[in-house]
Amino acid sequence: MALIVKKFGGSSVATPEKIIAVARRVLKEKNSDDQIVVVVSAMGDTTDDLISLAKAITDQTTGREMDMLLATGEQVSIALLAMAFAKLGHEAVSMTGFQAGFTTNEMFNKAKITGIAADRVRQELNAGKIVVVAGFQGLTKNGDITTLGRGGSDTTAVAVAAGLKADHCEIYTDVDGIYSSDPRVVPTARRMKEITYNEMLEMARLGAGVMHPRSVELGMHYDMPIHVRSTFTQEPGTFIREEYTMEEKEFVIRGVTHDTNVAKIAVLGVADQPGIAYKIFSTLAEANVDVDMIVQSVRAMDKHIIDMVFTIAQGDAPQAKKLLERLKTEMEFSGLMIDENVAKVSVVGAGMLGNPGIAATTFGALADAGINIEVISTSEISISCLIELDRVKEAVNAIHARFFPD
Amino acid sequence: MALIVKKFGGSSVATPEKIIAVARRVLKEKNSDDQIVVVVSAMGDTTDDLISLAKAITDQTTGREMDMLLATGEQVSIALLAMAFAKLGHEAVSMTGFQAGFTTNEMFNKAKITGIAADRVRQELNAGKIVVVAGFQGLTKNGDITTLGRGGSDTTAVAVAAGLKADHCEIYTDVDGIYSSDPRVVPTARRMKEITYNEMLEMARLGAGVMHPRSVELGMHYDMPIHVRSTFTQEPGTFIREEYTMEEKEFVIRGVTHDTNVAKIAVLGVADQPGIAYKIFSTLAEANVDVDMIVQSVRAMDKHIIDMVFTIAQGDAPQAKKLLERLKTEMEFSGLMIDENVAKVSVVGAGMLGNPGIAATTFGALADAGINIEVISTSEISISCLIELDRVKEAVNAIHARFFPD
Repeated sequence: MALIVKKFGGSSVATPEKIIAVARRVLKEKNSDDQIVVVVSAMGDTTDDLISLAKAITDQTTGREMDMLLATGEQVSIALLAMAFAKLGHEAVSMTGFQAGFTTNEMFNKAKITGIAADRVRQELNAGKIVVVAGFQGLTKNGDITTLGRGGSDTTAVAVAAGLKADHCEIYTDVDGIYSSDPRVVPTARRMKEITYNEMLEMARLGAGVMHPRSVELGMHYDMPIHVRSTFTQEPGTFIREEYTMEEKEFVIRGVTHDTNVAKIAVLGVADQPGIAYKIFSTLAEANVDVDMIVQSVRAMDKHIIDMVFTIAQGDAPQAKKLLERLKTEMEFSGLMIDENVAKVSVVGAGMLGNPGIAATTFGALADAGINIEVISTSEISISCLIELDRVKEAVNAIHARFFPD
Repeated sequence: MALIVKKFGGSSVATPEKIIAVARRVLKEKNSDDQIVVVVSAMGDTTDDLISLAKAITDQTTGREMDMLLATGEQVSIALLAMAFAKLGHEAVSMTGFQAGFTTNEMFNKAKITGIAADRVRQELNAGKIVVVAGFQGLTKNGDITTLGRGGSDTTAVAVAAGLKADHCEIYTDVDGIYSSDPRVVPTARRMKEITYNEMLEMARLGAGVMHPRSVELGMHYDMPIHVRSTFTQEPGTFIREEYTMEEKEFVIRGVTHDTNVAKIAVLGVADQPGIAYKIFSTLAEANVDVDMIVQSVRAMDKHIIDMVFTIAQGDAPQAKKLLERLKTEMEFSGLMIDENVAKVSVVGAGMLGNPGIAATTFGALADAGINIEVISTSEISISCLIELDRVKEAVNAIHARFFPD
């Protein structure tokens, strides 16, 4: 007997026909004594439709009432999916976030789960029913309905799996696993059988879009294996877990990612005094501008003048520009350059710690392709290079070919 | 200061524009220190749309999952209405059935309210907020979402008014009050300023469609005055309450109603023995066929043979026919006639007790119009006549003209 939590996203349940297909698939893959919890998102465009309704009333589409509104989306899909199971001959029961025991804090629209009391879910499972749980929602201790924000339904699935001590949590999505690179960019990208939580988090941070970091962090915290699979195929998918169990250990890196939502900012000719970096980055932090790669360089001709180069998300660029221009009244610098014509390519892998050849291989691949590296940054399990935007596809393929030969 | 519960139906909140109009009206009529609870139904056709979704999955559109599905309709409208109040500058908070403290029994799709804990509603009112409550829904003691079935939202409104000991409960609808007869049939029908619970119940039972009896019964039980008003006009409407307070006492009857959903059944030539009536009507009762007017007549020629005539709803006619034909094996009768070409016209009024002139006036009006009366039945506060279907409009107008002269 296995206890498995399966999560299907909005595109998997976009129509009544697709809902029936999901129910059919779950029943087909279920062994007779398995206990199954299915977590679903709202159908297709439902959430967007609800947001449009709210916008027809007010500009103020945040706060408590927005969650009251949006939570109905998942409530519709759980009811319909439970009906589909019944239609196919298997007892099922749907549960909203609060019925499934999810309590959250009071941060409406992006609430954090503070607890899960899975008694009712367990009781229904023990009664032989498939339990269908609404993703993305919970209840505050005051009894207000909340939604979990981005990545919410995946997080619901991993949380309920952790609460039930499930064997694992399956996330069904429109791709069939985690790839060594984005297959739309790198046709030879390999699907991984396994990847560690840490690697997955680093890949997500560096541009891989399949999994939201939040659910991976939760999986890591509770050591709950996450199995990423395709809704539309029977491929084996990828397990995200604490450590490798299989032969793929042989690859020192797990993936080559890229991120084009990057702007490079250069604050030029700053007098090198203590507190300069603090002033620049605290100003940005106060305005919630997230800074990524940072390089401070000293000019050969004048050791008291430095250039400060860093990257931010492109959407933050106009605000950063305004904030830095205002700083000019408080500190001296000779120029400010903002360049959106850049992209970041990264290699990720737990195996690179203590393996200096990886950086060399990466830089070598870019050099051989004639691609200039503007900024380099490293973490324990990744190396990132800022390059010219137009060459990002070439760069990712060049690096990928070195680490994953055919 | 007054505490008022206002209920708006689905057609009043069918679009974002109408929702804003409802909010605007509530604020306009609100004195600065009034406390206001607004109960709303699902927007326009939402419930039908949800039922269609369910039907695309299964034929089994009853039970727990159906309530899970349907309850989302009101949850959408409460959120949007609360947003509309906020947009217009007044603090508001929406509450689902369970948040507003409604507990029900476990009769999914037609649950009965078993309790209301209005603490949270009261607390929000005391904090100066308008509270927007979802009609039509509650929660069982096991934590399952239920809906209340027909007349549910009106019932929610009266129940929350009773729970809060509100001053009165206003039901906004698409007509501007209770009329002495259906204005589509009787152009000279008068709008009543007041009517008693008992009269309203009797009128509803006898065909008046404005108010579902359930909410009126609840109002009567808790002595909660119900004010029926139009969403679309400023007319004063009608108060349903225990006793008259105003001049309209002078009318001995309150209304002339009609019901065309009637079939007449005649069981002819039955041997007059003890237990015959019991056998006929218990057979029908076991199959949930509701019997209304009953007349037993003895034949002048043979005092041991009777005819039994009664009425039922037209939808029950085929089943009644089958049941009665089967009875022929157990008891003797010479014939069975079913006539759907009939209608019932009734006069209702608490004032008719001890006023024999009313029956005479009613029969006289029909006689003068040349309309034959097939069956007569009376209650404490009503007289009903079964007549030919084609003449119902004529009959209602003739009777109405006698009791409500211009």
